[in-house]
Amino acid sequence: MPKLYGAPVSPFVRKVMVSLAEKGIAHELEPVNPFAAGPDYRKISPLGRIPAYQDGDLTIADSSVILLYLEKAHPTPSLLPSDARDYARALWFEEYGDGGLGPIIGANIFRQRIVGPRLFKTPTDEAVVKQALTEDLPPMYDYLEGQLGSGEGLVGGRFSIGDISVVTQFANLVISGEKVDAARWPKLAAYVDKTLARPSFAAAVAASRKMLGL
Amino acid sequence: MPKLYGAPVSPFVRKVMVSLAEKGIAHELEPVNPFAAGPDYRKISPLGRIPAYQDGDLTIADSSVILLYLEKAHPTPSLLPSDARDYARALWFEEYGDGGLGPIIGANIFRQRIVGPRLFKTPTDEAVVKQALTEDLPPMYDYLEGQLGSGEGLVGGRFSIGDISVVTQFANLVISGEKVDAARWPKLAAYVDKTLARPSFAAAVAASRKMLGL
Repeated sequence: MPKLYGAPVSPFVRKVMVSLAEKGIAHELEPVNPFAAGPDYRKISPLGRIPAYQDGDLTIADSSVILLYLEKAHPTPSLLPSDARDYARALWFEEYGDGGLGPIIGANIFRQRIVGPRLFKTPTDEAVVKQALTEDLPPMYDYLEGQLGSGEGLVGGRFSIGDISVVTQFANLVISGEKVDAARWPKLAAYVDKTLARPSFAAAVAASRKMLGL
Repeated sequence: MPKLYGAPVSPFVRKVMVSLAEKGIAHELEPVNPFAAGPDYRKISPLGRIPAYQDGDLTIADSSVILLYLEKAHPTPSLLPSDARDYARALWFEEYGDGGLGPIIGANIFRQRIVGPRLFKTPTDEAVVKQALTEDLPPMYDYLEGQLGSGEGLVGGRFSIGDISVVTQFANLVISGEKVDAARWPKLAAYVDKTLARPSFAAAVAASRKMLGL
């Protein structure tokens, strides 16, 4: 049975959990603490990062690589549009989640509010959180609000890898006790709520909360 | 005609230049200084980063996204294996170049030796360079040496996106006046030399040197 290495509090591990659930792929979760991964783990994930994924004699790391592999090896249900332009835009939103929202929500909100106090016994610096919430994130919310149409996802009106990657970051925002202001960004707030209500996301977020004792 | 936004000194812009050359896609290069990108550029690249790529009314950013788009829109010659496992491994090496070698060669060698002195008039801290060369990179070279077979690329004996991403980082190592020790890592040294000799890489590296006055 394929094995997913990681911890469900990671938004990147959660991307793979959601993708596996959407595709109905049976697997085991092998817990890895990314702050204390040993040399054996580097044989599976050469940069020592989570998630990693093992399928038979194939081992790969990096959430984006794993999602593309799952799409190739298990194409149904599809999580990527077939049209080249929509495909590119879905992958762009994946990068926008991982490399745009991720560093801000992850390092400046989730780490301050949750990972620091709960896992390392370090206090929250609310000034860092406030700067993220009031200065860094609003222009990103403006951008996403402008990209959303009336359909289910950011691209082509259907759920894709791009939505998984964007909304996994918002899941950590919600776990941190914050949410998108629906008065100011109505489409984005509704989109986040609706996506987090998918069974795939609900189960993965419940696993995160359980691990954190929340 | 499609437009590539960026500067050829960036190893990430170079990935796209090499891919476009390998696929024979005519395009224009629109120079963008990533350290001084204005608000207009954010309409094209919402995170302000290079490269970005415009093809008709589609604009996308991020080198990995652009390479996957080019592969989808211009599948011949192919730069990704069709077998799911080789496809995953090629994408893994792409990530290993971008997120593994890139931060070390880029921030601790190329920035210290080239970008700092030539573009910002800041001196090189040779202690930072030395640590990268003697401590951080050798285990990565060991890993790559162990992954190389007798064929042309890291995966399946043929050139792929994985090779583009790994070797674009080595190009910046060479521009910085360093090279892989062929006595210690013979396969890796030969692989880097051979890949840099491809016309696609040779032209892109020549453009980098020209921009730097080297």
